Amino acid sequence: MIPNKNKKGQLVVLSGPSGVGKSTVIAELMAQRKLFFSVSYTTRQPRVGEADGVNYNFVSREEFQRMIDADELLEYTQYQGNYYGTSLKILREKLDAGVDVLLDVEVEGAGNVRRRCPDALLIFMIPPSFEELSRRLHGRNTDNEQVIAGRLARAREEYKEIPKYDYLVINDKVAHAVAEIEAILTAAECRMANRKYIVEGDYAL
Amino acid sequence: MIPNKNKKGQLVVLSGPSGVGKSTVIAELMAQRKLFFSVSYTTRQPRVGEADGVNYNFVSREEFQRMIDADELLEYTQYQGNYYGTSLKILREKLDAGVDVLLDVEVEGAGNVRRRCPDALLIFMIPPSFEELSRRLHGRNTDNEQVIAGRLARAREEYKEIPKYDYLVINDKVAHAVAEIEAILTAAECRMANRKYIVEGDYAL
Repeated sequence: MIPNKNKKGQLVVLSGPSGVGKSTVIAELMAQRKLFFSVSYTTRQPRVGEADGVNYNFVSREEFQRMIDADELLEYTQYQGNYYGTSLKILREKLDAGVDVLLDVEVEGAGNVRRRCPDALLIFMIPPSFEELSRRLHGRNTDNEQVIAGRLARAREEYKEIPKYDYLVINDKVAHAVAEIEAILTAAECRMANRKYIVEGDYAL
Repeated sequence: MIPNKNKKGQLVVLSGPSGVGKSTVIAELMAQRKLFFSVSYTTRQPRVGEADGVNYNFVSREEFQRMIDADELLEYTQYQGNYYGTSLKILREKLDAGVDVLLDVEVEGAGNVRRRCPDALLIFMIPPSFEELSRRLHGRNTDNEQVIAGRLARAREEYKEIPKYDYLVINDKVAHAVAEIEAILTAAECRMANRKYIVEGDYAL
């Protein structure tokens, strides 16, 4: 393998409609590859089964406001009256140490990441069909019909933002989606901008 | 899998110094992936063991000149008094049919491909070190010391063109180089520009 002392980590944003299977795909990715998953901060209440520091870092409105004022957030957004945001500090430490960082953010957040980190890879994940998305949302058994209808309506809105993303991955099967995201990460490592140091350094002829 | 009726093939250029192991890597790639390897046309004499239509399409100077005049070549270059070039016709047919096409061309040729096909992926493959390149060239037992010295000198010249390429792959081990090129091809398929039709077509919400 190539010594990567000058390698910076790659920032990767994964978005996709609620129910597409992001959590499953992310868990599988992290089992296969060294990757830091940046846990978002939120002011919303934990759902049943959600753990602080795992699904989200649950904080008060006051604490979230303090983070905004102190410019500690890479991006933040409001959704259904709650704040969601990404801490810049931990993320920078990881990237500087050469570790790839994965963010699971909404389409608004992705736009904000792009503005502050133009080199970030933006990946949007879609289900194989609208019917399948509806089936997956019903299968979770966590939301009532009204909430599901809201999520589906929001998915249609999110799709309008797809052209902003660099890559499109279809989660027809988890293994397939994971393989494509892995390929995107590996290809990013091979980009000339990320490997110039090799030719300029130890690998110079 | 996703129906790819609108998918165009991806044009991929692989360059690298003589002796880096391009032929081995290409053979391995083609064993693992549907890929059309475009055999170059040349006016040079076949070497021992080279077959017409396999290593090169060997043609006369008159025929090569006719192809230039008829604009049948995507790119061509002169090297040590001989012409080398890529036929545009077969390549277009394959790309239109959704098949990825791999070209093994010199740095000058790669520049010409880029000008005519801005979407082409340009990959440069290097050996892990200059000493290893020298070892590989000696190991082939096909060239005398003077020829090898010439190839090594040319490699140094070629390295100056590396920044023109999109991706850098190090052939420390064949399997590693193949895996990286495969990832580059898969990631290219996932690019938004290549998958927009999915969201606009059958996969629209």
